Amino acid sequence: MDTLQDVFLHELADMLNAEKQLVKALPKLAKAAATDQLRDAFEAHLDETKNQVKRLEKVFETFGKSARGKACKAMQGLIEEGSEMIKEEEENVSRDAGLICAAQKVEHYEIATYGSLCAWAKELKNPAALKLLQANMSEEEAADKKLSQLAQSVVNPQSNNGHETAM
Amino acid sequence: MDTLQDVFLHELADMLNAEKQLVKALPKLAKAAATDQLRDAFEAHLDETKNQVKRLEKVFETFGKSARGKACKAMQGLIEEGSEMIKEEEENVSRDAGLICAAQKVEHYEIATYGSLCAWAKELKNPAALKLLQANMSEEEAADKKLSQLAQSVVNPQSNNGHETAM
Repeated sequence: MDTLQDVFLHELADMLNAEKQLVKALPKLAKAAATDQLRDAFEAHLDETKNQVKRLEKVFETFGKSARGKACKAMQGLIEEGSEMIKEEEENVSRDAGLICAAQKVEHYEIATYGSLCAWAKELKNPAALKLLQANMSEEEAADKKLSQLAQSVVNPQSNNGHETAM
Repeated sequence: MDTLQDVFLHELADMLNAEKQLVKALPKLAKAAATDQLRDAFEAHLDETKNQVKRLEKVFETFGKSARGKACKAMQGLIEEGSEMIKEEEENVSRDAGLICAAQKVEHYEIATYGSLCAWAKELKNPAALKLLQANMSEEEAADKKLSQLAQSVVNPQSNNGHETAM
């Protein structure tokens, strides 16, 4: 790994694998959601994620490279955390609050990675790659915001049964 | 896991473990940095992270609970990605760009989790916990910004050796 382009391609391969892992994981999250709105949000993001995979493959092309993935261990861990919550806990609106948290960790993983990839695409003077990566980045940011709104307006208030804690 | 407080304590335990993992990982990142400014940034964040662990222990106290961690698999994966980059690649400023990306993924993992924890602490009407969690959150956001600035002003320009890619 000698140049910025090498680092870029390394992270791009990581991200391609991460998005593909997410395409498999999102239907499980949607199925586990107790709240209709949350299920709909996961399903809508699945469609976006499939399209993001295609954009990443095009980014490889703009560098004259074949698309290839690299096992993304962080995404494996992130998805495993979501799966544990589904397996270990009872389906209810409180678990939905936990599922939103798990999903927002995933979104932020992607936002961080796209942030670096966009900065590097700019530095490498590849505007075609930059545009594709910015499109993915914007969708992740919008998905993260949507989940925050859903948590605050629907899930958190419903899942708090009124217990107040000692100060 | 029946209530929002249960979900909160679940994620709090995850975060305590995550921050403790980071206390062990940051010195390795600092040692691997080729750029002085990046080494300094990692070392400064190590001090902050040690203090964040103490704040999280206090958050448990505000809920009348003993502090306990829960193996955070996502952080294991995130740290492993950073370690792989150190092991597999040559020490130079391009690797530093990759290390910054790895560190920003960690920061964003924490920002996402603290975002949920803060929202839940508010919902659970625990202002003492909220204040402690907001303090950690603010430090993570500042650390993330500092890394972005360092990447843009120092590391990325130096690591781009002028190669331009085919459009």
